[in-house]
This record gives sequence, C-alpha cells and structure tokens, in this order.
Amino acid sequence: MIDIGIIGFGYWGPNVARNFNGLPGANITCICDRDAKRLKMATAAFPGLKTCSDPMELIGDDGIGAVAIVTPVSTHFDLAKAALERGKHVFVEKPLTSSVRQAEDLIDLARRNGLIIMVDHTFLFTGAVQKIKELLDAGELGDLFFYDSVRVNLGLYQHDVNVIWDLAPHDFSIMSHVVPKEPVAVTALGTEHFGRGKEDVAFIAAHFDNGFIAHFHCNWLSPVKVRRTLISGNRKMLVWDDLASDEKIKIYDRGVDVRNDRGIHELLVSYRSGDMHAPRISNVEALRTEASYFLDCIEKNQTPFNDGEAGLKVVRMLEAADRSLKLDGKKIRL
Amino acid sequence: MIDIGIIGFGYWGPNVARNFNGLPGANITCICDRDAKRLKMATAAFPGLKTCSDPMELIGDDGIGAVAIVTPVSTHFDLAKAALERGKHVFVEKPLTSSVRQAEDLIDLARRNGLIIMVDHTFLFTGAVQKIKELLDAGELGDLFFYDSVRVNLGLYQHDVNVIWDLAPHDFSIMSHVVPKEPVAVTALGTEHFGRGKEDVAFIAAHFDNGFIAHFHCNWLSPVKVRRTLISGNRKMLVWDDLASDEKIKIYDRGVDVRNDRGIHELLVSYRSGDMHAPRISNVEALRTEASYFLDCIEKNQTPFNDGEAGLKVVRMLEAADRSLKLDGKKIRL
Amino acid sequence: MIDIGIIGFGYWGPNVARNFNGLPGANITCICDRDAKRLKMATAAFPGLKTCSDPMELIGDDGIGAVAIVTPVSTHFDLAKAALERGKHVFVEKPLTSSVRQAEDLIDLARRNGLIIMVDHTFLFTGAVQKIKELLDAGELGDLFFYDSVRVNLGLYQHDVNVIWDLAPHDFSIMSHVVPKEPVAVTALGTEHFGRGKEDVAFIAAHFDNGFIAHFHCNWLSPVKVRRTLISGNRKMLVWDDLASDEKIKIYDRGVDVRNDRGIHELLVSYRSGDMHAPRISNVEALRTEASYFLDCIEKNQTPFNDGEAGLKVVRMLEAADRSLKLDGKKIRL
Amino acid sequence: MIDIGIIGFGYWGPNVARNFNGLPGANITCICDRDAKRLKMATAAFPGLKTCSDPMELIGDDGIGAVAIVTPVSTHFDLAKAALERGKHVFVEKPLTSSVRQAEDLIDLARRNGLIIMVDHTFLFTGAVQKIKELLDAGELGDLFFYDSVRVNLGLYQHDVNVIWDLAPHDFSIMSHVVPKEPVAVTALGTEHFGRGKEDVAFIAAHFDNGFIAHFHCNWLSPVKVRRTLISGNRKMLVWDDLASDEKIKIYDRGVDVRNDRGIHELLVSYRSGDMHAPRISNVEALRTEASYFLDCIEKNQTPFNDGEAGLKVVRMLEAADRSLKLDGKKIRL
Repeated sequence: MIDIGIIGFGYWGPNVARNFNGLPGANITCICDRDAKRLKMATAAFPGLKTCSDPMELIGDDGIGAVAIVTPVSTHFDLAKAALERGKHVFVEKPLTSSVRQAEDLIDLARRNGLIIMVDHTFLFTGAVQKIKELLDAGELGDLFFYDSVRVNLGLYQHDVNVIWDLAPHDFSIMSHVVPKEPVAVTALGTEHFGRGKEDVAFIAAHFDNGFIAHFHCNWLSPVKVRRTLISGNRKMLVWDDLASDEKIKIYDRGVDVRNDRGIHELLVSYRSGDMHAPRISNVEALRTEASYFLDCIEKNQTPFNDGEAGLKVVRMLEAADRSLKLDGKKIRL
Repeated sequence: MIDIGIIGFGYWGPNVARNFNGLPGANITCICDRDAKRLKMATAAFPGLKTCSDPMELIGDDGIGAVAIVTPVSTHFDLAKAALERGKHVFVEKPLTSSVRQAEDLIDLARRNGLIIMVDHTFLFTGAVQKIKELLDAGELGDLFFYDSVRVNLGLYQHDVNVIWDLAPHDFSIMSHVVPKEPVAVTALGTEHFGRGKEDVAFIAAHFDNGFIAHFHCNWLSPVKVRRTLISGNRKMLVWDDLASDEKIKIYDRGVDVRNDRGIHELLVSYRSGDMHAPRISNVEALRTEASYFLDCIEKNQTPFNDGEAGLKVVRMLEAADRSLKLDGKKIRL
Repeated sequence: MIDIGIIGFGYWGPNVARNFNGLPGANITCICDRDAKRLKMATAAFPGLKTCSDPMELIGDDGIGAVAIVTPVSTHFDLAKAALERGKHVFVEKPLTSSVRQAEDLIDLARRNGLIIMVDHTFLFTGAVQKIKELLDAGELGDLFFYDSVRVNLGLYQHDVNVIWDLAPHDFSIMSHVVPKEPVAVTALGTEHFGRGKEDVAFIAAHFDNGFIAHFHCNWLSPVKVRRTLISGNRKMLVWDDLASDEKIKIYDRGVDVRNDRGIHELLVSYRSGDMHAPRISNVEALRTEASYFLDCIEKNQTPFNDGEAGLKVVRMLEAADRSLKLDGKKIRL
Repeated sequence: MIDIGIIGFGYWGPNVARNFNGLPGANITCICDRDAKRLKMATAAFPGLKTCSDPMELIGDDGIGAVAIVTPVSTHFDLAKAALERGKHVFVEKPLTSSVRQAEDLIDLARRNGLIIMVDHTFLFTGAVQKIKELLDAGELGDLFFYDSVRVNLGLYQHDVNVIWDLAPHDFSIMSHVVPKEPVAVTALGTEHFGRGKEDVAFIAAHFDNGFIAHFHCNWLSPVKVRRTLISGNRKMLVWDDLASDEKIKIYDRGVDVRNDRGIHELLVSYRSGDMHAPRISNVEALRTEASYFLDCIEKNQTPFNDGEAGLKVVRMLEAADRSLKLDGKKIRL
C-alpha cells in the first residue's frame, strides 16, 4: 500500500484521483490545488482527505510515496524535480516537460534516486492502442508503408500552448509506442489566426531513415471532429477510428505485391483485396489500467514502458516540430 | 457546328468522345489511337467514323476545327503544339504539360493564333465544386482558416508518373478555382516503396502570403478510399465528401469569434455552433457540361476559366511540389 | 421550495435524485430502497439525507410534498395510489401502470385530490423530440404519410416484462406527443426464444382512421443497435437518428406531388428533392428539464402535457399490443 | 449454342440482352418490343439483329430455343405459356406470374414438355446473397432468432402494381433462398396515399411454425434509401447493407446463451460479443452469372434452384400478403 498525493485538481485531476482511489494498493492522502473552489470539490468527492494549496507542502509530506502531477506543462519540471529530490515516485501529465533539457534532467535525477517516472500517455492503455501494438509487434502488417494520423476538431482553443503541444503528444506517444523503429527527423508546417503567436493548425511529419513517413494533422479549427489513424503495410492495412462507437479498429487483408518477372524494367505492382476484420476491443477505462500499472511498477521496481525516456522522445519531437515550424518546414534532426 | 477530332481512345477518350458526340454543336469526324484494338472499339461505338493511328494525320485534316488530346501527359506538348500551329482549338487532358516551360509556350502560341486551350479539369464542372465556388465567391465562409484535401486509396499504381502528378492535378485545380487568392510557395514530402523512383505517398502544402495553408494528402497505398476536403472559415465551415452518395457537401454554421474586451492580454476565442445545411447538388455529368462549355467558348470567342493559364498554375504547383520533394521539403517559391 | 422523497434507487433513481437535487425549487429529504446496499450508495451521494427501506414510511412523512416513484412497473399503482391518498404530487417512471384500469384509477384519484401526476417520459424533453414536435405542430412536413420507429439492439434482456413493455413506452409516448391525431387501433406480432413467455422481438402498428400507420420495431436480439425514426409527409420528410453524435435530425426538402391534369385515369405522381437541413439540437439533459417542469407545474398548479392522461394513452397502446400479440395480430380497437 | 429471343426491351431488357450476348453459348437472334423507339435502340445496340413488334412472331420462330420474357407481370403468363407450348425454355422476369394458379399452370406445362423455367430473381446471384446462403447452409449463425428486411426509398412510384408486388419479390425470393425452413403463413399491413388503390407503404411478416418471423418493410415514400437485412441467430448475427460500397456483409460474433443452473425459475440470459468480420464479396455482375447458369441448366438438363417452384413460392407469398392487407392483417395460411 502506497500513499499518493495529487497535485492539480482541474480538468483531469479528478479522473486521476478517482482511478487511483479505486485501486487496492493505493491510498490517496492529500490533494493540492491553488484554487480554493477546486479544493472544495476535492473534499466533496473524497471526504476526510487532507488538502492544501501549496504543492511544496504536499511534496514535503514524508508519508507520501508517490506524487501525481496533474498541472499545466510549464510547472511539470519544478514539481517533478522537487518530488524526485524528496524520494517520491512521479506520475506526471503529458507532455513530460517543456523542453528536452528538463526531461533529461528529470530522467537523470530519477535514475540516481532509484525512482520511477511515469508519463500519463493515457492512450497507450486503451484497448485500441494495445491491439495495434500487438498487431505491429507480431508483424501482421508486414513492411510498413506509412502512418497517418488526423486529430482535428473545433474547439478547446488553448491559451498557453500551440496546437502541437496540445494535441500532438497523444499522437507522438502512440506512434512511438507502436512503430518498431525510431524517427530521425521532424518537419512541421503551421499557421495561426488570432494574432497570439500560437499555431492552431499544424501538419507534422516524422521521418525515418528508410524513407518511412509518419504524418500528423493537428487542428483546432476543423468543421468536423476526426480522430483517425491509417497504418498501411505490404501485408495488411488498418484504420483506427477512435470516434466509432463500435469497430474502432478495422484490419484490411489488403496489400501490394511487387513482382519482377519480366526483367527489371517491368516491375508489376499488384493489389490484393480480401476480408476485413474488426477485432473486439477491451473497453476497460485506460486510466484505471495505467494507474494500476504505476503501482505494479513501483512494487516490482520495474521500469514502465511509458517512463521518462518515452516521455523524452515525445518532448524531443515536440521541440523539433516547433523549431521546424519557425524555420519554414526545415528538417530538424532528432 | 464544329468538326472535332479525338486523339487517344484509352481509358478516358471514350467518355470525351461520347460527351462531345451528344452535343448539337459538335460533330466528331475522326478518332486516332496507336492501338488497333482501341480503334476497333471506337468504330463499334461510333459506326461510320473515320479512324487513324497517326495523330499527325488527324491534325493535318483541314476540316477539323478542334482537337481533343486524351493521351499521356508526356505527349501533350507536341500534339497540342502541332494542333495549335494548324489553327485548331485544343481540349487537352490534365495536367496541361510536363513542365511550366511547355505550358507557357502553348499559351503563347494559342494567343498569337487566336485559339482556345481548354484543360480538362473535369472536377470544376461537378455540381459540388460549382457549389463550393459559389459559396466562396459570395464570402459565405468569411475569412478562410485553412483548406485540407485528402485523396487516398489503394490502387491504380501508375508507372510513368508519381502520385503527385497523378492525383494532385485534381486538387490543385479545384483549390486554385475556388480559393480567391494565389499561393506563393509550395512544400512537399513524399516517399516511395518499390524502388522505381516514383513517390506513391505525398503530403503537399500550398502557402499563401497571409499564412493561409492549403494541404493535400495524395496516396496510392491507403487501406481505405477517402475523397474529402475541409474548408474552414471564421463564419462557416464546409466538408465535401465526394464519395457520399447523398449530401456530398455539408455546410456548418460554425465559426470562431475573437473578442478583446478585457484588454490586449485577454483575447477571448469563442466558438459558434449552429445548424448544418446540405444543399442539393446538380448531378449533370460534369464532362458533358465541360464539353458544351468548350463549344460555347469557341463560338463566342470567349476565354474559358479553365484555359491555358489555369492549366499553367496547376503545372507550376506540380513542378514546385516535385522540386520540394527532392529538396527535403524546402519551400519553393511559385 | 418543495420537499421531495425518492422511492427506488436502482438504475434510474440516482439520475432522478441528482436532477431534482440540482434545482433551486426542490429539496430531497428522503430516499427509500429495499436494498441496504443501494441506500448506502444514496447516503454517499447525498450525505446527511434521511433514508428508509419501507416506502410507506416515506409516503407517511407529512413534510414531503411530492414523491418520485422509480421502481418496477408492477409496484407503480400501489405506491402512486398511497402517495396520492396522502396528498402528494407524483412523478412516476414509465410506463405509468401495468393496466389501463390502474391508470384510470390513479388519474381519477389525482383529479379528486387536486394533485399532479407526471409520467417520466424523458424522451419528450430531449432537444430532438422538442424539435420534431415543433416541426409537426407547424405543419412543416405537410400531410403525414407514415411514421416508422426502429429501436433494436442486443442486450438488456428483462426478466419481468416483454420487449414491448420495456422499449415501446418510449416510442409510443414520442409518437403520441408529436403526431397530431390519435390512433384508433393497434396490431402486433412478436416471438420469444427462451421459453419464458416474454416476447423479445416485436413489430407493432398503430392505425389511424385516415389509414395513417405508425410502425414500431422493438427488439432485444439485434446484431446492431438502431434508434431511428422516419417521419414522412408530402411536403418534407425527416429522419431522427438518436445514435448520431451530430446531426440527430435531418429534414429533407423532399416530397411527393400528385397532379391529375390528364383526367382521372392518369394521376401523375412526381417527386421533389431539394436541400437537407440538420437543425442544431439543444443538448440540455432531458431529465433536468423535465424535473424543472414538474416543479413549475406544481407551483403554477398547471397540468403537465406528460400527465396521467398521456401516460394512460401509452398504457392503453401497450395493453392493446399485448392482446393483439396473443391473438395472432388481430386489430385491437383503442 | 442456343438461339435466344428477347421479349421486352424497356428498362431491364437491355441488361438481359447484353448479358446473354456476352456469353459463348448463347446467340440472341431476335428482340421484340411493341414500341418502335425501343426497337430502334435494340438495333443500335445489337446491329444486324432481327426485331419484331409481335411477341407471337418471335415465339413462332422455330430456330429459337429459349425465350427471355422481360415484360410487365400481367403479360408473363400468356407469353410464357405460348413459349412453353412451342417447346421453348423460358427465362422470365420476377414475379413469375400475377397469381398462384397461373404459376402452377406454367410449372405443370414446363414439366410435361421437359422444359426449364427460370425466374429472374437476380439478387440470388449477387456475391452478397451467395455468401449469406453459404453461411446459413453451414449453420454459422446457429438457431435463427429473426429475419428483418428493410427496402425503402423515395421514388419510382409504379402505376400498375402496389409496393408489395414491386419490391417484395426481391426480399421474398432472397429469404426463401437462404432461410432453410418454409413459412406457413403471411400477415401484411399497408396504406396508400393517392387514391389509386395501390398501397405505397407495407409491412409484411412471414410466419414459420416454430415462431420464427421474417419481417419486410417495403416503402416508396421514405425520405432515405435503406436496403438492409438483419439476420440474427444464437451463435452469430449478420447485417447486410446493400448500399454499402464496401463491407456489404458484416458478421458479428455475437449471440445469446441461456443457462438454467439455478433451477427453472432462474434462466440466465447472457450475451456474447466478439469480433466482427466482413468477408470479401464477389462483384461479378449477378445477371451475367444468372444468364450463364440458365444456359448451363439447359445444356445439362438440370433444374435451376430459381425454377418455377421457387417463383411460385414468391407468388404465393405475394398473393397471401395482398389478401392479408385487404383483411386488416389477418393471418393467411400458405
């Protein structure tokens, strides 16, 4: 049984608290938020719990073994650093930090202190992403052709970050998790419309050394909501539509074969088209699975797959995308 | 009544012939194809018609007033040049030519000889594109935020051109037709998978001087077929799904307002969300409308909107996209 | 301010309690359930509230002015009768009672005691049904051709009632609310598959004296979930898809005209097909609107439109459908 | 090689002619139509062919071995009778005849003369129906729960028959083909709106002796076009959406299990929900397959599955549905 403190009780904090609270191995002992109104809501939801408005008070509590940091990204580094220095395991919202440098420092600190950092890339714990990873790990799709992710909708304009830092952490972490290789460079294009210097439309590409491209369209100004990822390989191809109520993942027995039976100048490209299969997807709440995994990793002293390094990869891509954007789409090496 | 000769009776030629044939003002007098089998089909479809295998024979026929060139792009320049030199109006498949230089030469030649070039950008004559142009011309969408076009599917791998030259002429010509401003630069990314040096996946962006971006995803290796264009403005937004059997165009009374009533540091971005409207779209065959328009333009000695200049704009974008692709996504000025 | 007691805290009771609780004019003072576990949940959700396991104790509480009965249908009559005899207004789950006779008795009792009965036909308070009623009241669809409702899915097999008593109360109450005329007869077909004597598949028709038919397909054994209603008229036609996340209601400017200009033997039936319009639908929680309306009706001593009489109409149709089913689809007059 | 005569060159006749014409074993020698304009079109499509306006002339031609009757249903009996009497095999449009009596007479006549009658139930030769039959023959769905067919749209109001005789032959023939058992009775409801005595909306049920119901909604006045059939069994369930461009058939690994482990009064109904599978469907033109099958049956002197008896079953259901309709939905034994 580990005592957990929650810092931040805004939009996502209550979900984090609720999920840790439902687990046998965890005990939430303190919730911290600067806003008294939010603390009142915390008390209503978890009667009898300690609350405080100063995160350092929570972090200073020696009884607490792990801290969940559910605050804006600009505060992640300071809070996580303080917690790690005090010997606490850290569960932190995505993206891990505002810069690669900060992420590297935290990873270093955690390693030296033998502590766990888990970055809350919740999507990695959905039934859909688990199924996709399973398929790609097994080589079901064959050699990959491309990866294309569209995450667009109208709304939720953020004031402190651009659309890349808001939406792309989801897609970067998913791609990084399921695609076996690592990107070597990033390019990005974007534009903004309200004179705030924060892009609201962005097109990002991750480049791999074999020419493979993963492309991401992130957009706050789209007439319709789309959450669709295409992954195409020479043996099979798949579509993940996260908004579908049923059949979120469709696997197509389609592919492309190339033959060369008439000499090098006459490659024959032929298409195969077979059945479609929509596997049943687990609908366990992803955050519950993730919270439970965090406790397991602590107990077994095991490095989670969504650790500081995984979080760093995402931050590295975000930083590169931002730089490329400023440099007219120049290719930024990772 | 004008006598028309058709050069090329492959995949698209029969449609061009059938549509001109059905018009009161046109008389097809000769069909040319190098393939005897195709000529036999032409004779079956249009009994009593003259056929030939040498395009120069057709072009040399003084009775013919206009020539439709429905052949691979690499042959467009020579055939169109010969026809224009012989004083014939030209209806030519998209894209107009293989290079900007060729397109400029043809335009110059046509101007000097007082002849019409019409590039067969058939989509511009669909009810859907006509409706979109009507809406944008009337300013219904307000200030445009972005334009996003996805044209992907599995199949029809072309051997002589890459996916950009195959699919993007459709999208470039449509965008160029409906968006009131002109792009100033193009960037493109792409990759190819079969060792042929012809990209089969491409992401292209047209950049405008006010930061507006039009983005195009063209792809021969997608598991699913998508033909969808989003156009978003501050007053309204629209989605054109060309595969929908009904309601191809949906206009959303959605938009974004920005207010500044608490001083410069507190811009408020607010969303509006109202009704959706799917206007009835004409389903007259686009090519019929276009063929008829070609005859009208000849008769009234009027410059078509899809003239050589319009075709040149598309070729210029294609050429720039190709260059950018080779230069790792470098921005190419138009 | 009125004190309200809630009887039944199973599946739906917590929603009723939560919605009344959020209203300024209401004060929940007691929650009753036979199951101690459910009462514990009630206490957790509404700390400090009185609870009891005997509904008569709640009904006997003189401070309580209105009772919400959220229990299985077989108990509605006894509980509502007791509450009305004690001078309490009644908010009761659908269907109102198990028989027409019981419904008539309650209506009579309420009338004599000057009390309000409101039957919880929640759907009538959704934005979708409100919009449909508005359209039909305004005659937007012209003369109605037919009404067709499909409510099918896999699951939630009920053990105490058949699929008609489970699902049709929704559809009967909606149809009765929006269609201006009254049905005169009902026919029904059905079948059951598990030897329990409770039909799990049913097709029901309500017949009107002008030949108009409203048809209902209710089904617990369908591979897919469908919640779709078609309403067709000679001026316009509409589709309500309750599962659509967006555009739940689509109004088609389609219709049929009949002309007779060549004499009686040559009626010409012609179709019109115009735009489609999807009005914005309010997404206020229906039960909140309904709860608020209940308080208003009490305060203003006003008869709700979903009163005992409205509930009786639904029970009369249910009873008739059940009889028809037993008599091989015989037409039962209402 | 057999010589075939085509009677009727209206809407469907050209398709029949084109498909027989493309087969190696068939030779169309004569086309008959009362309308000179249609004959002219026949000559244009099949240059050099004999045409006539009197079907008896064609039937009297001794060189002709088989006759395709593609005329309105009211003429089927006389034409087919004359052809069979002259020793010709008959391919006849659906429905076979206007009455059970006529169908029985034709069957009898064909049997006595050793001739084949094939009823053009084209849908039975689609990839979709072939796949469904294959699944049901193999018992893949387990015990069937219900069959539900919806065939509705706006348009194509017929003047000579009601909506049942127009649309239901498709659905009756499909159901009859794929469902292993035979219905024992039919009920039908319907209504008409234009004072012509021809119902334009109908709901029909076929009843089987084990309680199984197959239900059919046929409708000319629907705002939207729907062509959907649900077939549900205790092992699997399927949806056939004939308007889907892809994935016309979806097979759900869903079902219902009933256990009785707590004594007879506590049956447990539990649901299973697994993967979905959309098999690849052949897209060979159904009429081509059917025409080829007709020739095969003649050559091998083999009884087709869509013979006179199959056509009679459909006519018997149509007749029963019509009678039930006139008798307020009374159950009509087959």
